[in-house]
Amino acid sequence: MSNWNTVAIIGVGLIGGSLGLALREKKLANKIVGIGRRAGSLKKARQAGAVDSTTTDLARGVKDADLVIVCTPVGQIVEFARQAAAHGREGALITDVGSAKESIVNVLSQDLSRGVAFVGSHPLAGSEKAGVEFARADLFEGRVTVVTPHRRTKSEHYSAIAGLWESLGSRVVRMTPAAHDAAVAATSHVPHLLASALAAATPEELLPLTAGGWLDTTRVAAGDAELWRQILAENSSHVLNSLAKFEKVLKAFRAALEDGDQARLLSLLEAGKQTRDTLGS
Amino acid sequence: MSNWNTVAIIGVGLIGGSLGLALREKKLANKIVGIGRRAGSLKKARQAGAVDSTTTDLARGVKDADLVIVCTPVGQIVEFARQAAAHGREGALITDVGSAKESIVNVLSQDLSRGVAFVGSHPLAGSEKAGVEFARADLFEGRVTVVTPHRRTKSEHYSAIAGLWESLGSRVVRMTPAAHDAAVAATSHVPHLLASALAAATPEELLPLTAGGWLDTTRVAAGDAELWRQILAENSSHVLNSLAKFEKVLKAFRAALEDGDQARLLSLLEAGKQTRDTLGS
Repeated sequence: MSNWNTVAIIGVGLIGGSLGLALREKKLANKIVGIGRRAGSLKKARQAGAVDSTTTDLARGVKDADLVIVCTPVGQIVEFARQAAAHGREGALITDVGSAKESIVNVLSQDLSRGVAFVGSHPLAGSEKAGVEFARADLFEGRVTVVTPHRRTKSEHYSAIAGLWESLGSRVVRMTPAAHDAAVAATSHVPHLLASALAAATPEELLPLTAGGWLDTTRVAAGDAELWRQILAENSSHVLNSLAKFEKVLKAFRAALEDGDQARLLSLLEAGKQTRDTLGS
Repeated sequence: MSNWNTVAIIGVGLIGGSLGLALREKKLANKIVGIGRRAGSLKKARQAGAVDSTTTDLARGVKDADLVIVCTPVGQIVEFARQAAAHGREGALITDVGSAKESIVNVLSQDLSRGVAFVGSHPLAGSEKAGVEFARADLFEGRVTVVTPHRRTKSEHYSAIAGLWESLGSRVVRMTPAAHDAAVAATSHVPHLLASALAAATPEELLPLTAGGWLDTTRVAAGDAELWRQILAENSSHVLNSLAKFEKVLKAFRAALEDGDQARLLSLLEAGKQTRDTLGS
């Protein structure tokens, strides 16, 4: 018996496509419907085996779904989740995969129609690559997925969504939306901003002299610019706070270099190495 | 016929060890001597097949060498190159692999004893990994090596060193030491500094919430702290200049976030993406 009868995935790119592949591989749904705006992307999703059927008509796509997963860029999650609630089954459960949660969860935890409930999720499994062609059934295996219930969220709804991610191989971390947003500002959004600023600040004529270090440090800057604009804008206050902490360390580096303070310079590099060494390569 | 009779490698870690492996694999030297301070590292270098023999006695190690390659951290290159010149063969050629060149090349282009000549090199092939256990014969294949002649450098000496790197598979770029140092400040030293500052600024309790983006962006921060202290200190004026350019872009990002200027935020992200997309993943 499958956990879900019909799952509707709105936005079948890297994350949505990987969800479809994983749900099918693990036989967790009887039917998976892919919903999108471009027929071309939907065709690719069908060809990749990520979904059973597709439609560009959201109302039709969510009609029979007991679970709807919104995998669009963060700026569109609220709107699509609302449409899904309006046109979906009574008692359907909706989640998302957005990188910023606070305002989305606040808005969508107001009464949705007919017993439909929203519980926010964020699988930490993104990539600078976009599109269903990069989707993988094991994308969530061994990854952390943060699930961010609102104080109104019923425990059975939280458990169902946490169970979804666990069944896909994720380790679920429960956080408030605000704590999540503060955390990922530091661990994901500021790193993206820095990578992007570094890439933008590198003179083009010097690119032939870059090597592995520059490539690693700037890799995420290749991510979709509009998608990241939405994330940074949505989470701007936490990002600015986190950026201020980074700027403080950067200022200490600058002062050590300007003053020729070798002991300070070494201790800053050692602090960075110590933190980085905590995790693997 | 080998290109070199005896090659002495001072410092047999990742780079020195890879040089030994590559020279042996390509049969470019009749004999390769590894010189180091720690018997344990030298033993590993012999076991890895990177060198034919080893010694902790620099004078003895360089005695018969027609080529000496100094692969120590930048802070020790001048001292070891001078010792090699003092104890080496008449007419021996010395190069190095240091990441900062201007002061090293200036000092070592003064008359060395008995016709010994120094030509500076920098293969862009480093890694956050250290030690001969990570050495690879193909480390320089397809990589850029910058060769930085002084105005006193004789053309046959430049050609011999450029030829060395080409024979190891590198593409050689000829630059003045000052131009090299300005370039790598932007492409390598500032990226390292930022990666290190980002790692140091990330609260330890949030590390479980990092994913691929943070890992990529901070990867080089795992590099040896003392080695990088020497590089940043040696090249501090260029690093500070290059850092100022980065800070200007960062300030623009901050302003766009504070002002909610979405068009500006998007254009900054697009500029970073455009530069990053110029190179591969």
